[in-house]
Amino acid sequence: MAVRYFLGIDGGGTGCRARLRDEAGRMLGEGKGGPANARLDTARVRQSILDAAGAALRASGLDGEIWQRTHAGFGLAGAGQTGACERLLALPFPFADIAVDTDAYTSWLGASLGNPEQPGDPENDRGAILIVGTGICGFTVLGGERISIGGWGFPVSDDGSGAVTGREAVRQALRAHDGLAPASPLAEAVLADIGPTPEQVVDWADKTTPADYARFAPLVYAHAATGDPLARLIATQAAGFIDDVARRLLTLGAARIHLLGGLAGTVQPWLAADVQQALSPARGDALDGAIALAHASQTGSADNG
Amino acid sequence: MAVRYFLGIDGGGTGCRARLRDEAGRMLGEGKGGPANARLDTARVRQSILDAAGAALRASGLDGEIWQRTHAGFGLAGAGQTGACERLLALPFPFADIAVDTDAYTSWLGASLGNPEQPGDPENDRGAILIVGTGICGFTVLGGERISIGGWGFPVSDDGSGAVTGREAVRQALRAHDGLAPASPLAEAVLADIGPTPEQVVDWADKTTPADYARFAPLVYAHAATGDPLARLIATQAAGFIDDVARRLLTLGAARIHLLGGLAGTVQPWLAADVQQALSPARGDALDGAIALAHASQTGSADNG
Repeated sequence: MAVRYFLGIDGGGTGCRARLRDEAGRMLGEGKGGPANARLDTARVRQSILDAAGAALRASGLDGEIWQRTHAGFGLAGAGQTGACERLLALPFPFADIAVDTDAYTSWLGASLGNPEQPGDPENDRGAILIVGTGICGFTVLGGERISIGGWGFPVSDDGSGAVTGREAVRQALRAHDGLAPASPLAEAVLADIGPTPEQVVDWADKTTPADYARFAPLVYAHAATGDPLARLIATQAAGFIDDVARRLLTLGAARIHLLGGLAGTVQPWLAADVQQALSPARGDALDGAIALAHASQTGSADNG
Repeated sequence: MAVRYFLGIDGGGTGCRARLRDEAGRMLGEGKGGPANARLDTARVRQSILDAAGAALRASGLDGEIWQRTHAGFGLAGAGQTGACERLLALPFPFADIAVDTDAYTSWLGASLGNPEQPGDPENDRGAILIVGTGICGFTVLGGERISIGGWGFPVSDDGSGAVTGREAVRQALRAHDGLAPASPLAEAVLADIGPTPEQVVDWADKTTPADYARFAPLVYAHAATGDPLARLIATQAAGFIDDVARRLLTLGAARIHLLGGLAGTVQPWLAADVQQALSPARGDALDGAIALAHASQTGSADNG
């Protein structure tokens, strides 16, 4: 029986990552590529994935001959959109087979299972993930049912996310400029960064992405730590929204919350005591979750390599 | 001395209007054209203005020969953007001369002066305008200084506007779907309109303009009138933001507020008693304000026709 390999992909709007493991779970290499949100142009997403996979392959010292014995799992933001995965998988890939799911699902798999060479039942310990980065999303699987809370995107959802937190800072800075809210060091810092005139903020806001707003979220928490009342207000509101998502996951039956994402460490001290007590470190990351996805899709057909 | 004519243009992101008056202030015709926000492509803005002017001319029964004796005033949304007016006026127009300003300024001129054949000092009665439509903007001129409050655009400003009010309805509908807020008839109506699934809302939100959100503002106020708690909450918050802008204008020295815009009649009953007492009907509209602008630019050179 030929050796098999497992490739995990974690793709989002700003970039994607790849990890290559052998059948025994040994890490062989990792790599990075460009944006791979499944809603983007499929040719671009494919190229980003192949770039990241190629980098992981080079890091492993192996050659492309292994791809035909490699089972790939893709966890991609945007994969929930109707038809997005079908369009992507209609393009040619060199792998033996591919399993695709959302990045929320692979993040949850990774957080629940850890290194996936011996995948068990990921529902066993009823973990839920709460990702707080540019966006925010609560996710778990309970009784075989997937549950997503929040995370429907900016600007109609994502309260508590970096993007909404940063946008609140910009909004309050404009209110302070207009005399509708008190001046504060945070408001001044935001206007100095973007403006200083409101007209410059208008021009800036014309071209912003959620990530542009999210850039100000760490500034909010930094000013909140020094006691700036406006920053404390925004941070407290954001933490309240995050608490809401966490408590909803717990109410629905989750036993623990794995707090993930670029702002996880920043927001954690602001969360309520009952939410803090439910937090638990993730066992693995989204790349290991993607590898677990590839393993799971092989169950019952492990000798076809 | 040849007869002179005055053309007023009121241009925004969804369309523009034109009004033609003679020197004595008699209304000769009106017309409509396409979008004429000064931030849009200048060739398109020019064409929209010429279309509206041409329609007004046809309504008047006069012919294009009068344009060379016509003094035009353009009140354009986006005219405050650096370079926008210069780029537009670099294109050829058939009028004797053109004065351009923001639609806020011409709306304020119109509200303060009314039919502009005998323009006085528009600052005389210290009026301020508060436009509540897709966006929101408070504006006045006091002691020769222009004052704008709010209205820096969606999504970083415009609290109390139709766009923000509608977005709040969508946001709360998603929260209700996730179990983060109680269900309500408004939330159900919004999801039924856009969705019904959150995934469909995500797809919809990808392509929305502020006007798409503003479409839900009347629905919010209609449900609020029937006692829907969520709708009442959103309407009360929106009215509070509008009150803030009105009070700020009064604090700065305005003596009366002219409430304008597509949602003026809808939001008025929700405003606070002190704000209601400061409201006063506008004397004229933005088209007459644009004509007043053209008149003002002729002062001291009235015999050059």
